Amino acid sequence: MKIVDYRVTPIAFSDPPLRATMGLHAPYALRTIVEITSDDGITGVSETHGGAAVVDDLRAVGDLVIGRDPLQLAALEAAIWPSGARWRSDLGAALWEGKLQSPPRTFGAIEVACLDMAGKALGRPVCDLLGGQVRDRVDFSAYLFYKHAGAGGRFGFQNDPGAAPGWATELQHEALSAETLVEQAQAMVKHFGFKSLKLKAGVLPPEEEVRTIRLLRAAFGPDMPLLIDPNAAWTVQTSLRWAKELEGLLEYYEDPTEGKQGMAEVAKQTSIPLATNMCTVSFADLPESVRLGSVQIILGDHHFWGGLRASVELARICRTWGIGMSMHSNSHMGISLAAMTHLAAAVPNLTYACDTHYPWQSDEIIVGGKLRFEDGALAVPAGPGLGVELDSAALDRMHKQYLDSGLKFRDDEIEMQKVEPGWKYVRPRW
Amino acid sequence: MKIVDYRVTPIAFSDPPLRATMGLHAPYALRTIVEITSDDGITGVSETHGGAAVVDDLRAVGDLVIGRDPLQLAALEAAIWPSGARWRSDLGAALWEGKLQSPPRTFGAIEVACLDMAGKALGRPVCDLLGGQVRDRVDFSAYLFYKHAGAGGRFGFQNDPGAAPGWATELQHEALSAETLVEQAQAMVKHFGFKSLKLKAGVLPPEEEVRTIRLLRAAFGPDMPLLIDPNAAWTVQTSLRWAKELEGLLEYYEDPTEGKQGMAEVAKQTSIPLATNMCTVSFADLPESVRLGSVQIILGDHHFWGGLRASVELARICRTWGIGMSMHSNSHMGISLAAMTHLAAAVPNLTYACDTHYPWQSDEIIVGGKLRFEDGALAVPAGPGLGVELDSAALDRMHKQYLDSGLKFRDDEIEMQKVEPGWKYVRPRW
Repeated sequence: MKIVDYRVTPIAFSDPPLRATMGLHAPYALRTIVEITSDDGITGVSETHGGAAVVDDLRAVGDLVIGRDPLQLAALEAAIWPSGARWRSDLGAALWEGKLQSPPRTFGAIEVACLDMAGKALGRPVCDLLGGQVRDRVDFSAYLFYKHAGAGGRFGFQNDPGAAPGWATELQHEALSAETLVEQAQAMVKHFGFKSLKLKAGVLPPEEEVRTIRLLRAAFGPDMPLLIDPNAAWTVQTSLRWAKELEGLLEYYEDPTEGKQGMAEVAKQTSIPLATNMCTVSFADLPESVRLGSVQIILGDHHFWGGLRASVELARICRTWGIGMSMHSNSHMGISLAAMTHLAAAVPNLTYACDTHYPWQSDEIIVGGKLRFEDGALAVPAGPGLGVELDSAALDRMHKQYLDSGLKFRDDEIEMQKVEPGWKYVRPRW
Repeated sequence: MKIVDYRVTPIAFSDPPLRATMGLHAPYALRTIVEITSDDGITGVSETHGGAAVVDDLRAVGDLVIGRDPLQLAALEAAIWPSGARWRSDLGAALWEGKLQSPPRTFGAIEVACLDMAGKALGRPVCDLLGGQVRDRVDFSAYLFYKHAGAGGRFGFQNDPGAAPGWATELQHEALSAETLVEQAQAMVKHFGFKSLKLKAGVLPPEEEVRTIRLLRAAFGPDMPLLIDPNAAWTVQTSLRWAKELEGLLEYYEDPTEGKQGMAEVAKQTSIPLATNMCTVSFADLPESVRLGSVQIILGDHHFWGGLRASVELARICRTWGIGMSMHSNSHMGISLAAMTHLAAAVPNLTYACDTHYPWQSDEIIVGGKLRFEDGALAVPAGPGLGVELDSAALDRMHKQYLDSGLKFRDDEIEMQKVEPGWKYVRPRW
């Protein structure tokens, strides 16, 4: 079995005006779809980060993909790292994605497509190529955002997001206060059944965000796990000042401050476990992170850790060093969600509900429409490979949206300036 | 595909009177063969440590194996750890194997058989289930032993070991001095083409062993990598005293002294990289070992690290922390060698030639006789699964040898006392 065709297609899909410390989500989120086909007509698909630099990097390694057997992954990884591809992902250093290394992202995107192909060829779900299933259903948390009114895009909804009747209306509401955020949480829990709540913070002054956590606790009672992610918007001092208020309220405290050293300083002085998808985002980060004790939980992400097998290896590292493990997400479609779910199903020590932006996206690129959460969890998609199929009409439509959007990379600062002229992304802000 | 039959068979095969710091190899080495069969008639096989405790542990988990799909490995591993099986491997605390944890050994033995079965079912070599091949041939080193005259066993040779005409005669020579050891090395290099030499030390006084290294360097010239393994027979002071003499002569210095702390003390004061298969033998050992800087090279061994997938994960840890990687061995048959070779073929950062006792064993349990080294390397066995087939007549014969031998566990001290009454295993000895 050899890969004879390799296609990289940038897409854009409507994304609501969600706020984070970097600014505001654009009306369209960017993503990239990788498709491969074997000489015996078997296909594989994956989804990764979006934008021109990601696409360029993926296209630059096409020669390394064509002719390869989809299970020869270690050799492909070894070939990609020194391939001399123009690793453009340092473009836009202000962007969060700019800190990620391109080789693991590029390899990871191809690896998932290869495992999808191999799974289909062998008649096995992808999770069986990762050690097999340790759970049938994967828990996700409600990802709560301060947001402006609207649902993004130019054309409104293509689907009812997450096949949850009624959520499409509530998704459009503004939520720029503690009270409206609690309403958003109630709607999300009602429609998807999530059993933990994560607040994307670093947007409003810390006192308002901590007040939001207190109101969430009051609204949902003592047993609902609450998580907060200020995206390093706070100084060490601010992180510690608010940690005192948050003790006993949080399951974990995600990236309150910048860097391994800063996180370690916070960790030393609070009993709340610290989580990260910012200060430890690659294997190269681990030795220092472990040495300093920067984090107690790593939010893995196969899109930038180097694929699904690398993520299983990261999980072993977390088990070995007693670090908790969960999963980070960006705005994404169902192919990423399927891959995340296969991975999460195979990792024994996935000790917290996973993140997902999925309910915020109304578009879908897989046949059959949105995957459906039940009681806040997703069943592992049935069938060989990833268990999902690319909808080629949707791919064409979203590729046209990419071209029409004129967006080449994610820049939440520019989007924020459109609604608040002169706004600047600064970190730490408080 | 479900496993419907699971058989655990203890075997014994002739082993020469090799010396190590623990004493003397018995005339027979013990090993255990695991066989599984699926409902569609596909078989899987593996080989692991020997003796009654190992067999008891494997048999105690039979209920967890029967009915299971061979790719559902993470769930099997999770089930085995707390299974309440009577982990008897702490029996005989004086034995080196006694320090190893039984759950990863037990799981590892079953995992290899499962991967052999899955590979056969999917039409894929085992290495393709581990990330694919990064090399076609795996380098091994000549494992040199001080030894008494003879080849072990009661019946002489069944085969010419390693299918290397003439080696069978030379294998029987006594080698209890630097000079005779060099002759052994020359014979081994002549017959197998090994391109590096490891001396099992901790047997003769350090000055004689260091003299052996000097003679090997003189005999083989400056480009032959030399390795020494005193099996922790030396104190920190002795290790450092001889490190000074060995600087510039050794590729690595394996377990000169006992424990993570002792090894770290040696590591701080020598430029020779330290290797281990003693102070870091499980994932639980890694955090302290890394923190102290105890070793620069880990000699992995899928038989006690928890199987082939765990070994790939160990390799990722070694890459991440900049630790070199190679492979440890005990006396073994061709099934173990095939599994080691598949693993070594799939691990990108296997930075040194692997250990093997294989040339010292004349028996063989796989169809077609001994696997053949060429230029000190072994090609990955062709065909699906491990690429080797169990010889059922040889299994019966070696099982009878196990029963006839009367041996229930390895005890090199007792064997040594047979030739040197009153001999005691002490560590450190020098």
